[in-house]
Parts: sequence; C-alpha cells; structure tokens
Amino acid sequence: MKYRESSLDAVFGALADPTRRAIAERLAAGPASVSELAEPFAVTLPAIVKHLAVLEHAGLVEHEKDGRVRYFSLVPAQLDGAADWLERYGHFWRESFDELHRYLRSERKAET
Amino acid sequence: MKYRESSLDAVFGALADPTRRAIAERLAAGPASVSELAEPFAVTLPAIVKHLAVLEHAGLVEHEKDGRVRYFSLVPAQLDGAADWLERYGHFWRESFDELHRYLRSERKAET
Repeated sequence: MKYRESSLDAVFGALADPTRRAIAERLAAGPASVSELAEPFAVTLPAIVKHLAVLEHAGLVEHEKDGRVRYFSLVPAQLDGAADWLERYGHFWRESFDELHRYLRSERKAET
Repeated sequence: MKYRESSLDAVFGALADPTRRAIAERLAAGPASVSELAEPFAVTLPAIVKHLAVLEHAGLVEHEKDGRVRYFSLVPAQLDGAADWLERYGHFWRESFDELHRYLRSERKAET
C-alpha cells in the first residue's frame, strides 16, 4: 500500500503530542465520547475537541453521531501506514548493517 | 523496552516533515555527509543542517567527525521505539475488533 507524503506528515505530526497519543491509546480499547475521553486528562473539553480534530484530520480517528453525542473511534489503517514506513527503514538499515558486518568479516578472513 | 514520552514526542515530531523523512530514508542506505545529504533536495545547506539537528535531537541520527567532515548515520533503535508504539495500538484495536466480531457472531447464533 502506498501512503501519500502529506498523510504521513499529518499522522506523525498528530502522534507527536502525548495527550493525542493517550487519546489514541484509549480509543484502541473501543469507541468513546468526548466527555469520556476528557475525563482522565487534566485538560479542558475544548482542548480535547481540538486534539480530536487533529487526529481526525490525520485520518487516525473518525466519529459517528448518536443523537447529540459524538462517538470517536480509532482508524488503525493509518497507524499501519506509519508503522510500515518505520519498519521499512529500520529494516533497510539493519540490512545495510548486516552487509557491512559480512564485508568486514570477509576482509578479516582475507587478511589471515 | 520502555520509551519515555518525551522521546516519542521528538521522534514523531521529527518524522512529521517530508524532507526529514527523506533524509532518514537516505541514511538507511548508509552514512552520509551534510553535502551528500543536501544534494538531492531543493533546499539550502543550512536548512539541511537544521533538519539534521532535529533528527539528532530526537535520537534518530548521530554523527562522527572525519577531519572537517561530519558523517551522519541512522540510529534504528529510535525507529523501533516508534514502531513498537504503533504496533501495540494497532494490535489492541484489532483485538477489540475481533472480540466484537466474535460477540456479534455468538449473538447471531443465539438468535437462530
């Protein structure tokens, strides 16, 4: 799957804040309303609403209305996109490192 | 492994920029000097230096001096920390989803 650059900008940017990560962690356990989400945090309701807007803009959460209450839930596909990026480059690096290791070992063998 | 909150803030913040991600992608292939890193980008050398400082502050890159030239390399352990976070919550979500799925299926069976 190919993720647009702008999408990764928004996802990583949204996750760079500890309150937003904590909201995502809470939503990983299941959907919640704004007031349920605000409860464990020492921040105001409007601040939570702003954080939710950033997460929603990044495609990390979505909401459904049930009467006057909005229930937010996590969209894991966006987490996967960011995880893919991290794994790809962590993996590349390790491969380069393994190659270097093999090269150094073969050099050492050639020396003896 | 436990990653401090501030460390994830810095890592996700550093990766929220497309030029910084491109620098990390380049460094995944092996160490490079500032001028080597600047070459493919339409930005100035001081801009690259600033991006490298952000990546280094986040612990994603480190540098060694060879005479007057600084060679930058990727520190994959920090990528792993961010990848761990993403996988953990993606995984949690999927488990909740599977549970819901099992519950709905058992409800449906109970109805018939």
